[in-house]
Amino acid sequence: MKTFVTGAAGFIGSNVVDRLLDDGHEVVGYDNFSTGQERFLVHAHHSDAFCMVHGDVLDLPRLSAAMSGCDVVFHFAANADVRFGLDHPKRDLEQNTIATFNVLEAMRATGVKRIAFSSTGSIYGEPSQFPTPENVAFPLQTSLYGASKLAGESLIQAYCEGYGFEGYIFRFVSILGERYSHGHIFDFYRSLRENPDELRVLGNGRQRKSYLYIQDCIDAILLAMQHPASCVHVYNLGTDEYCEVNQSIGWITESLGVKPRLSYGGGERGWVGDSPFIFLDCSKIRSLGWTPKVTIRDGVIRTLDYLRANPWVYEVRG
Amino acid sequence: MKTFVTGAAGFIGSNVVDRLLDDGHEVVGYDNFSTGQERFLVHAHHSDAFCMVHGDVLDLPRLSAAMSGCDVVFHFAANADVRFGLDHPKRDLEQNTIATFNVLEAMRATGVKRIAFSSTGSIYGEPSQFPTPENVAFPLQTSLYGASKLAGESLIQAYCEGYGFEGYIFRFVSILGERYSHGHIFDFYRSLRENPDELRVLGNGRQRKSYLYIQDCIDAILLAMQHPASCVHVYNLGTDEYCEVNQSIGWITESLGVKPRLSYGGGERGWVGDSPFIFLDCSKIRSLGWTPKVTIRDGVIRTLDYLRANPWVYEVRG
Repeated sequence: MKTFVTGAAGFIGSNVVDRLLDDGHEVVGYDNFSTGQERFLVHAHHSDAFCMVHGDVLDLPRLSAAMSGCDVVFHFAANADVRFGLDHPKRDLEQNTIATFNVLEAMRATGVKRIAFSSTGSIYGEPSQFPTPENVAFPLQTSLYGASKLAGESLIQAYCEGYGFEGYIFRFVSILGERYSHGHIFDFYRSLRENPDELRVLGNGRQRKSYLYIQDCIDAILLAMQHPASCVHVYNLGTDEYCEVNQSIGWITESLGVKPRLSYGGGERGWVGDSPFIFLDCSKIRSLGWTPKVTIRDGVIRTLDYLRANPWVYEVRG
Repeated sequence: MKTFVTGAAGFIGSNVVDRLLDDGHEVVGYDNFSTGQERFLVHAHHSDAFCMVHGDVLDLPRLSAAMSGCDVVFHFAANADVRFGLDHPKRDLEQNTIATFNVLEAMRATGVKRIAFSSTGSIYGEPSQFPTPENVAFPLQTSLYGASKLAGESLIQAYCEGYGFEGYIFRFVSILGERYSHGHIFDFYRSLRENPDELRVLGNGRQRKSYLYIQDCIDAILLAMQHPASCVHVYNLGTDEYCEVNQSIGWITESLGVKPRLSYGGGERGWVGDSPFIFLDCSKIRSLGWTPKVTIRDGVIRTLDYLRANPWVYEVRG
């Protein structure tokens, strides 16, 4: 199978690239390297089945040319910065909504019919039900990130109905693991490297979040795609557990052997539009036989170990 | 109150302009006249409280300049062509999603905080529940029009949360009445003028649809806006009835005194992405004291009477 991966140099995209290559597929990677890293592709470049195109998903002619001849698209290019969306509202619109439109148009132009899409549990906003199933009551959007991802989902759904595409939409919790370079563990470890005696925490530390280890995430995606959708399938991807930010801090500081004084920004939310509780009902993907192998605690530790072994990630991401 | 109306020369927009002027408000109208009609603004232009700006919602500097100093935005500019969305997928993205983003950005630039938005029952796709309440199970999108309007809603919701906007989102059924110039009555009357002996019907004629008379629609919008939202309010707007396309054909042909032979395209849906059944639960807006005054049947007849009295609408709309 010849696969096309947008955001191929990103955290999730590059791990998907490696897995697809290991599984014997051809991979065309596509990335503008705005946040992606060449170093995430070292393993991939060893393979004859991999080629990388430097390009922007907003450049439709280039995107279409690169996609030509592929059988399936993994669309993982995105602006993944949830927290600072309000500082630059156009970024989510362009990178998540218009970019997804372009991917769909490139597919239409090149005759590719299958797409996997990285959506997010953030589209549930502050849901009425926990754990939150895919068919929860129609939610209101609380972040530009969530709004832009829901717009992307909606476009995929309409293309499936209108043009006979086959869509696999995955609503992720936060993903952890090797090449993670964005999020609370990234921020906490940087802070503790600089000053192990103090840690500033957004919100009250009681925010409850769910996390999933990257290889478990990829297992689920590839399993779901073995069950062809007549049209469009939507799956939550997460674990059957959640943790408080404070618990995660406990695992991190214990692992580092530090005992910082904690100071809290206060409030239930880390920032405007933050979801104080994310916990997805994943029984739909589990019904296909998938089970996550790594607990949240172990995912946090593995992520921390990765960051400790790869300080260069901090140099390039600032 | 100084109001700003996008799509001011359209069917719904121009009726809203007239009502706002009659209620003693100032109105700045904004329209690119791609489908809007100067003749819909004849009444408005008699008022000293009205000024019209010819401009495109995709032109953000012009939009912001025109909006400056207003208190509230009625955002009704849209691509309302549901049926032919698949022929030009970019139109819905630009005219409904990006346009709404621009309206929100213009509001942010000019300090306007209140917005009313014309969304659609089409965002429910093929819902799991009838009549469909606002908090029905998270639906899948079946049309580019629905997808683009849901994206617009989602942006408004995120701006309300993130920037303290106050949003009123109205999910319309099809609207009927004076200045109607698009939809099944428009198409059927045109066909019957040309050939009263035959009428071609999309689908099997059993599609069940709900309709609302324009003045009832405006009553509901203005009433809802008297109940300030702390953040964002979503209301279905429709009647407590629906009709089959065949019933509507009966009212039209009876009123015209013709007995055409009916031929059907077949299938449950009029076109790909058509909803075979639209029937909204409007108890939320009704709980504010609103009741529609015009039945679907009377709305159809009034619309037909308008079209009979205004054949120029066919000349300009082809």
